[in-house]
Amino acid sequence: MVPNSVNPDLQKERDGASFNREEFASWWAGGAESLKFKRDVKEYMLKGLNHADHALLYYKSHEEICDFSVRTAIETGKRLRRLQEERNPGGDEYWPELYASPEVWAATPAGNPFGVQYVMLVKALKAQCTPEQYEEFGKRVERFEVCATYAQTELGHGTYLRGLETRADYDRQADEFVLNTPKISSYKWWPGGLGHCSNHCLLVAQLYIDNQPKGIHMFYVQVRDENTHEPLPGVHIGEIGKKMGFIGVNNGFLGVKNVRIPRTRMLMRHAQVKADGTYVKSPADVLTYFAMVHTRCIIARNNALFLAMAATIATRYAAVRRQSPINPKAPEPQIIDHVTQQLKVFPEIASSLAYHLASNNLWGLYSVTINDIARGKYERLPELHSLSCALKVLCSTDSSLGIERLRLACGGHGYLTSANLSNLYISATAACTYEGENTVLLLQIGRFLMKSWRAALAGAPLAPTVNYLADGVRNAEFGAWTGSWENLVDAMKFVAANKTRLAYKSLTNRLEKGETEEEAANHTGIELIQAAELHGRAFVFGSFVSEVTGAKSKTRSASLNAVLELLLELYLIHVTLKQMSDILRFINLSDADLSKLQERLETTLTKLRPEAVAIVDGFDFTDQQLSSTLGSFDGNAYEHIFEAAMNSPMNQKSVPKFFHEHLGPFMKSNI
Amino acid sequence: MVPNSVNPDLQKERDGASFNREEFASWWAGGAESLKFKRDVKEYMLKGLNHADHALLYYKSHEEICDFSVRTAIETGKRLRRLQEERNPGGDEYWPELYASPEVWAATPAGNPFGVQYVMLVKALKAQCTPEQYEEFGKRVERFEVCATYAQTELGHGTYLRGLETRADYDRQADEFVLNTPKISSYKWWPGGLGHCSNHCLLVAQLYIDNQPKGIHMFYVQVRDENTHEPLPGVHIGEIGKKMGFIGVNNGFLGVKNVRIPRTRMLMRHAQVKADGTYVKSPADVLTYFAMVHTRCIIARNNALFLAMAATIATRYAAVRRQSPINPKAPEPQIIDHVTQQLKVFPEIASSLAYHLASNNLWGLYSVTINDIARGKYERLPELHSLSCALKVLCSTDSSLGIERLRLACGGHGYLTSANLSNLYISATAACTYEGENTVLLLQIGRFLMKSWRAALAGAPLAPTVNYLADGVRNAEFGAWTGSWENLVDAMKFVAANKTRLAYKSLTNRLEKGETEEEAANHTGIELIQAAELHGRAFVFGSFVSEVTGAKSKTRSASLNAVLELLLELYLIHVTLKQMSDILRFINLSDADLSKLQERLETTLTKLRPEAVAIVDGFDFTDQQLSSTLGSFDGNAYEHIFEAAMNSPMNQKSVPKFFHEHLGPFMKSNI
Repeated sequence: MVPNSVNPDLQKERDGASFNREEFASWWAGGAESLKFKRDVKEYMLKGLNHADHALLYYKSHEEICDFSVRTAIETGKRLRRLQEERNPGGDEYWPELYASPEVWAATPAGNPFGVQYVMLVKALKAQCTPEQYEEFGKRVERFEVCATYAQTELGHGTYLRGLETRADYDRQADEFVLNTPKISSYKWWPGGLGHCSNHCLLVAQLYIDNQPKGIHMFYVQVRDENTHEPLPGVHIGEIGKKMGFIGVNNGFLGVKNVRIPRTRMLMRHAQVKADGTYVKSPADVLTYFAMVHTRCIIARNNALFLAMAATIATRYAAVRRQSPINPKAPEPQIIDHVTQQLKVFPEIASSLAYHLASNNLWGLYSVTINDIARGKYERLPELHSLSCALKVLCSTDSSLGIERLRLACGGHGYLTSANLSNLYISATAACTYEGENTVLLLQIGRFLMKSWRAALAGAPLAPTVNYLADGVRNAEFGAWTGSWENLVDAMKFVAANKTRLAYKSLTNRLEKGETEEEAANHTGIELIQAAELHGRAFVFGSFVSEVTGAKSKTRSASLNAVLELLLELYLIHVTLKQMSDILRFINLSDADLSKLQERLETTLTKLRPEAVAIVDGFDFTDQQLSSTLGSFDGNAYEHIFEAAMNSPMNQKSVPKFFHEHLGPFMKSNI
Repeated sequence: MVPNSVNPDLQKERDGASFNREEFASWWAGGAESLKFKRDVKEYMLKGLNHADHALLYYKSHEEICDFSVRTAIETGKRLRRLQEERNPGGDEYWPELYASPEVWAATPAGNPFGVQYVMLVKALKAQCTPEQYEEFGKRVERFEVCATYAQTELGHGTYLRGLETRADYDRQADEFVLNTPKISSYKWWPGGLGHCSNHCLLVAQLYIDNQPKGIHMFYVQVRDENTHEPLPGVHIGEIGKKMGFIGVNNGFLGVKNVRIPRTRMLMRHAQVKADGTYVKSPADVLTYFAMVHTRCIIARNNALFLAMAATIATRYAAVRRQSPINPKAPEPQIIDHVTQQLKVFPEIASSLAYHLASNNLWGLYSVTINDIARGKYERLPELHSLSCALKVLCSTDSSLGIERLRLACGGHGYLTSANLSNLYISATAACTYEGENTVLLLQIGRFLMKSWRAALAGAPLAPTVNYLADGVRNAEFGAWTGSWENLVDAMKFVAANKTRLAYKSLTNRLEKGETEEEAANHTGIELIQAAELHGRAFVFGSFVSEVTGAKSKTRSASLNAVLELLLELYLIHVTLKQMSDILRFINLSDADLSKLQERLETTLTKLRPEAVAIVDGFDFTDQQLSSTLGSFDGNAYEHIFEAAMNSPMNQKSVPKFFHEHLGPFMKSNI
């Protein structure tokens, strides 16, 4: 039923682009070698999957979905392991490194209940175990002889870790910890795979010695029998029920009642509890910072990918859907010709790039400072931590809103599960909450900005990425508005600095009125989060400009540079216009300046029009990755929609059971 | 497990409010009598529902869900019919009037596949059938002797109706129409209940006589056998598969191939086809306008309710969730004490009111003009139609975004299906697309504004709700910024007028450069939709101010008025700040003016803090309506979350099947 040929409307777009799609793909993937590696992995991992079974996923019952996800996750693990053995025996760049990577997502479309085990747990064990501990139980997790997850969040506490209620009391006589979740709110809640897919976990709990709190520590705890999989005595474990997404990830709950573990099951690489109950504090929390920056870079990278996937789907669909005449004498146009449609779709393509580049940039900055850290110099950590928070917040927020705009840009069919846009949205929006709730993170950034502003006022040196605050302290005026890219970056920094100034003023006023630091910070919360957002935006702006105009541009062809410049122009103008209320408060723009921006926006949309399809092709997603009836490479959207509908179990019988049991009798009953 | 008592944190809020919740509830419901009526209906209709079965809904397979929805929809129909017979035999205010009303939504939590039959179809048949036709087949639909739906949207065409491809060719010899969906894109796609729940439908098709197109008409077509429910010859029918929401609504597809119906099955109250093939045009399309305004008022009303439901859930949860210390020496506060949380939640409460009132206001305006219409005066129809579009667009957009903000404000638990916020979102966002895609509607409004501006330039009289454009033509300056409520309404109008002016200028420039009217409108699209949005905002502002400050305020207690004034203040300030980039372009505000707005925002949040719970209580939703573990009246959120999790089928066995089949062997295999 689906034609073997590419929809001519889409082919025409591909033929008309001005740049080389392969060069774009190579740039986006981080080089030709990286592109080839990713393509090889995808081909190996996604070949011969059971498509018929995958297509039925959203028609299954919850139990069937859980079964499906375990099955596909294990198949994926086996296949990756085979790939590793074939390509580089004894290495780890395929298995387990890629187990939860974007290249294999499509192999586990219900999610991977063992993802946490390899994305977080093995890493945490490596970082926090003593060598003996890692040998004893860490390696078993790494080898998948046991299945384990990371149990931190509780029913009553999420981002605010210090409030966790699970306790581990040291029993000197027995040389054991006694674990308890004393209240319903202390139950562990949410950990991926905890429900029925783990027999061990890393439990995050408040350590108590002689009833004295020693803060949060990690404990390696067995929760199910390795042979029978039955929960162990004192363990109350199960799954937390249906969620918006993560349908097969088996997020679980865990209550423990006087569960005892040996003292040596507290991870003791840094902090320690001696047999006599002596507590040795961890020398530094650098590693925690390090892990958090890493995680947040990955979130930003993944969310940029979700957005790029949605942009691919919406762009291709906009090229094949024809609707609503522009010229009443001509046939209905491709909807990508409607300027309002361009405004919905193209900025999201640009936004994918912006966050992809910002995430790369931050990771680069971080790698540079690793040397400092190795030499015991931790000064830049708070700055980079703040930046990683900002990036995580902005990317999760903008990508989710962007994906929704793209879904809505596909009209009614965007609402079909088979379009896959709703699933991308759900994956993206979850990142607004996990790994630090966005508002809480913004407030932390706000506090960092307050500290930095105070330092700037005192003339103290500032960290490089907040140095612009010192300019803000010095200069009350912005200078000339030229509208150049550098000028737009400067404007965003200037506005961030001024919002920081206003927030600082409000905070100080409140302190002077006698409020405590904490009360004042709460009451200044709205201004703090605004300043924090702008701080992040200035960084994203800067990253994008320096990638496009910097030294690397010399390694690219002129035609690729031209299209990257268009995307940069669109991004800067679009975001600048969105933040215009803040800008106009601090910078004088004439009516002509504003009209000029609007004109540049419209011009750039027009110039991107013939390039859009080739750009999203350059993201190099396969049809399996996109899993979208609207966004397939061949552009036969209606046929794919139709085929997907025909797969519905309801369409396998002409007359449903409910007609005989309910509907038929009801119509005859005259009610 | 769930306590019988109300969470003390919530009780404290209720005890501390300054106004009478019952008075609020009565005002919100449209009077004491209406409140009582709604409560009675809810009690009767929702009593004794099978909660255990309802709680399992999201764990079921698609087929089970379809069965569930048909079953519950029929049970609801029967019960409403009994209610009608008991309270007012022979009337229709319960059955069928309330069949798809908010009061009974909770009885059909998977949606009502027969909703379209009573919300749209019976009304369309009444309006468009001749009396003989209605007697012959309309009444059968009304009495539910047959089940029928409204088949308009196609795979290839939605909002742009003139593009529909299904055709009805008149065959003079046979005195029949021959129906065809010639291409895959012509298939009917989306109609609720069409898949397996209808044996008839109202097919919207292009009428052809002697191959000459006569435009769109409606045809009553049988699609399934009434006894066997098998599809009739030439009919290809089924469901369109899984969607984001509307999980049990059985949205369907329909293809017809040379299906023949008698000539008398075209609805002929207005347009007619005579036996000899003579075509008689419909005298006016007033009724179409009328139906559309009505539908869009209902969408705005329903979406305001979705938002109010979400606001109820988030407000109650914010009162019982404690997290992140403000004062480090005090226990963790209710999160409603965090100012950033207030900023997320309270504006959405106010927004629910704003759209509720705007919808009432528009309906009132409309009713007033019905007399004009009866006297053949249709002048105000385009104006009101435009306003109804604006209201539908803004309310669907703002309510969906608002519900998402509220969900995110509930942290991780907002992501649980049992919180019900994701379902509310999905219901709300669908309204952005159905009954006229939002951007298409905004462009229509934009064109109406262009016409009006041209009229204003020419000094012609304008319709009352666009009269402010004439002021815009006359006055280049706004006058004094006072920040009073009236001033804020005027500012929104002034900005709307100026955006209209700019769009008109761009449009005219393009026309002068030789673009056609249609090309110019497309290229000016961005400016047109911005002007249209502001036009709508000014109307919503005006409605809210006049309800709160107008004559009706004398019928309310001072304490209720005080709380309504707070909500009005919050709404106006919050939206004004959001539109500040437009405002600053046209109106001079000093830095002090801007700081004052920020201060008013913060002050109002503080004043609303002790009233918030009582306000949402006043929306008077029952726990069954909210169906939310986070938002129940008793505030025992954690216990409800826990109970819901324990219902999961996965939690009924300690060890899942997949352990024995997949996971256990895998761990033992050393891969």
